[in-house]
Amino acid sequence: MPLKQSWLATANSPDCAFPLNNLPYGVFSDAGEDDPRCGVAIGDRILDCRAAEAAGLIDVSDAALFELPFWNDLMEEGPAVWAALRARLTELLADGAPEQAAVEPLLVPMAEATLHMPFMVSEYTDFYAGRNHATNVGTMFRGAENALPPNWLHMPIGYNGRASSVVVSGTGIRRPWGQLKSPDHDRPAFLPSRRFDLELEMGAIVGIASDGPITVAEADANIFGYVLLNDWSARDIQAWEYQPLGPFQAKATATTISPWIVTKAALEPFRVDTPPREVELLDHLKDCGPMLYDIELAVTLAPEGKPASVISRTNYREMYYSSAQQLAHHTTSGCPMNVGDLLGSGTISGPTKPERGALLELSWGGKEPITLDSGETRSFLEDGDTLTLHGAARGDGYIVGFGPCAGQVLPALKDPYKR
Amino acid sequence: MPLKQSWLATANSPDCAFPLNNLPYGVFSDAGEDDPRCGVAIGDRILDCRAAEAAGLIDVSDAALFELPFWNDLMEEGPAVWAALRARLTELLADGAPEQAAVEPLLVPMAEATLHMPFMVSEYTDFYAGRNHATNVGTMFRGAENALPPNWLHMPIGYNGRASSVVVSGTGIRRPWGQLKSPDHDRPAFLPSRRFDLELEMGAIVGIASDGPITVAEADANIFGYVLLNDWSARDIQAWEYQPLGPFQAKATATTISPWIVTKAALEPFRVDTPPREVELLDHLKDCGPMLYDIELAVTLAPEGKPASVISRTNYREMYYSSAQQLAHHTTSGCPMNVGDLLGSGTISGPTKPERGALLELSWGGKEPITLDSGETRSFLEDGDTLTLHGAARGDGYIVGFGPCAGQVLPALKDPYKR
Repeated sequence: MPLKQSWLATANSPDCAFPLNNLPYGVFSDAGEDDPRCGVAIGDRILDCRAAEAAGLIDVSDAALFELPFWNDLMEEGPAVWAALRARLTELLADGAPEQAAVEPLLVPMAEATLHMPFMVSEYTDFYAGRNHATNVGTMFRGAENALPPNWLHMPIGYNGRASSVVVSGTGIRRPWGQLKSPDHDRPAFLPSRRFDLELEMGAIVGIASDGPITVAEADANIFGYVLLNDWSARDIQAWEYQPLGPFQAKATATTISPWIVTKAALEPFRVDTPPREVELLDHLKDCGPMLYDIELAVTLAPEGKPASVISRTNYREMYYSSAQQLAHHTTSGCPMNVGDLLGSGTISGPTKPERGALLELSWGGKEPITLDSGETRSFLEDGDTLTLHGAARGDGYIVGFGPCAGQVLPALKDPYKR
Repeated sequence: MPLKQSWLATANSPDCAFPLNNLPYGVFSDAGEDDPRCGVAIGDRILDCRAAEAAGLIDVSDAALFELPFWNDLMEEGPAVWAALRARLTELLADGAPEQAAVEPLLVPMAEATLHMPFMVSEYTDFYAGRNHATNVGTMFRGAENALPPNWLHMPIGYNGRASSVVVSGTGIRRPWGQLKSPDHDRPAFLPSRRFDLELEMGAIVGIASDGPITVAEADANIFGYVLLNDWSARDIQAWEYQPLGPFQAKATATTISPWIVTKAALEPFRVDTPPREVELLDHLKDCGPMLYDIELAVTLAPEGKPASVISRTNYREMYYSSAQQLAHHTTSGCPMNVGDLLGSGTISGPTKPERGALLELSWGGKEPITLDSGETRSFLEDGDTLTLHGAARGDGYIVGFGPCAGQVLPALKDPYKR
């Protein structure tokens, strides 16, 4: 599919993240004002959807879609309305649209806007579905022979995370305190984490509720869209707490998502197959078509006041399990899923060292610190570091971008109980 | 504290679960009608709180507390309003109350009411904080020498569960399908669970939000009340999935709670100390007074069409960590907590066999089936079994009861993907 021409010139640039082919959904307010509302990104502008609905330019449902500053109400309307809205937005913003004069005043410069959480997260689940990541981490924690747990090739391993900790790009991330147990000590101590890390992931957003087991095809249909997702992880807290019930406080400080929901519709042209299966999947988890997306990903790290270095480059197609397979697995036991549920893909790492999606892997547990462009080294994140995830699918003369997913590491509280 | 006398005679019976000392909060509708609303249990009646507010009999806050059929709005008002409501309800229902004639028409017979979820669950966390349970399960899974994980005596181990799967007592529980891996087979199969189990727990409800680490004393203050909680568990799904990230689908079918929130205020007279600590807790987790409650617990199992047998009797004071310590630990990393968060205590097992709170322990992994009063045996739950948790604190001539927490096991779907 080629670039769709918009009457907004900035949307037609081949390196613009938000051409007419994309139309991602976010929530914004004008800088310095507290009036968050739904908007769609186009070029270097945001179309104010609430204003467009009020002006009668968007009228695709009997319900008001944009009264609340979240995209959940649209999701609740279901796929026919999702498609109708996308078609109408495409119409309004396409080159030659008769509505151009009416729409132009409703465009807000993105550079002057503050972006907010694009949807209300119902519950948050994080998976462990990248084979290279699972192999690397497993090798470090359990040795090369036991790297992949016996269940790993049969199901997407996941755990429930904390929805309350999901924040939008730009939110400062406070280094957590936690119980740490050094191998040289008999007992743990309560200290700020020393091995604070990122995880490069994609997040899938459930747009249709289910109440019972669903097939992979149904799961794929139930996904509304995708965001970039950084599951901040305190490796030292995790190492001490995770046996036998899995990660808990190590993953509860924050998870950052990118501010724009890129819809499944926008990603359709970029579908690719999952990797070959070493063992055949059970029927209820089998692929029902190309289930992943060709999305180029990168991670940059900028020490405070210094330029950013690229520390990882990889691709979403490196996943072993797709989000649809994860969602299908999530429902096998009858678990009810709700609109706004967020599913983290698991860390995305390619097969070679510069493609690894976490410092744990990049520095091999801290043993091989990486060197930044500034000459500084990093085993784990330091205070002041700004970590940014970048993602884009490349079309024919255009890209479908996600917008940055960034967070700066703030120093730990001096005394967490002193207020 | 002695029994507080009510003008409602059934509330003054020494074996009534709902005397004036209790006043637990639920949501009810008249049988056959779809109009759920907040009510408080007294004797064999429910006081319709929405009607009482509308009649001006309850006026303890500027906000309307009972517009929604959930107790979250009261919780949001904070402890001063919690106390004012409890004081007002006590006044209205006490022997000699001048409002008796006005209140009487607002009482609904409990026997004719349907009970609903008493609050909206924001997020659900389940702990593993009973020492006897952890020792028993650890012995079965990892051998007696490694029964308690190294971290266990230092922190309350927990994992995030699924709020969407929490249901109220009386809801049928569909036996789940899942991946099972028999030791005799190379590969897993997708089948209905054969080792479906209960877990006898208490649930603590967070009534005050927090955003950062809180002390144990603050955590205790933030808890609104308690319910009985049965964390249904598919042991065969769990055994195959739980390494390395903990239980997921094994615990996602359902968690049943009792329909009445027994407030912390009602339980105050029953506070008891946690057990002696084998190793000293770190400062941020230390007890700040008697943190558990003396609540007698029992589990009954009734095969379809047959009388119930008591299969376990224990006490909440058997826990090693209190809910306040669990909540404090939950916030150490900065994890935001919200009103309506539900914290399962973990399975409560006493030191002897008849005090064990799960069939996994009672039948020692299925090796020693238990015998019911009917002569039938059980290793795990069978279709048609009704499982009921019972709980009450015993005062001087009265009890503070929770009301039953029951669920019947329904047969697995024949084909989960056929609709």
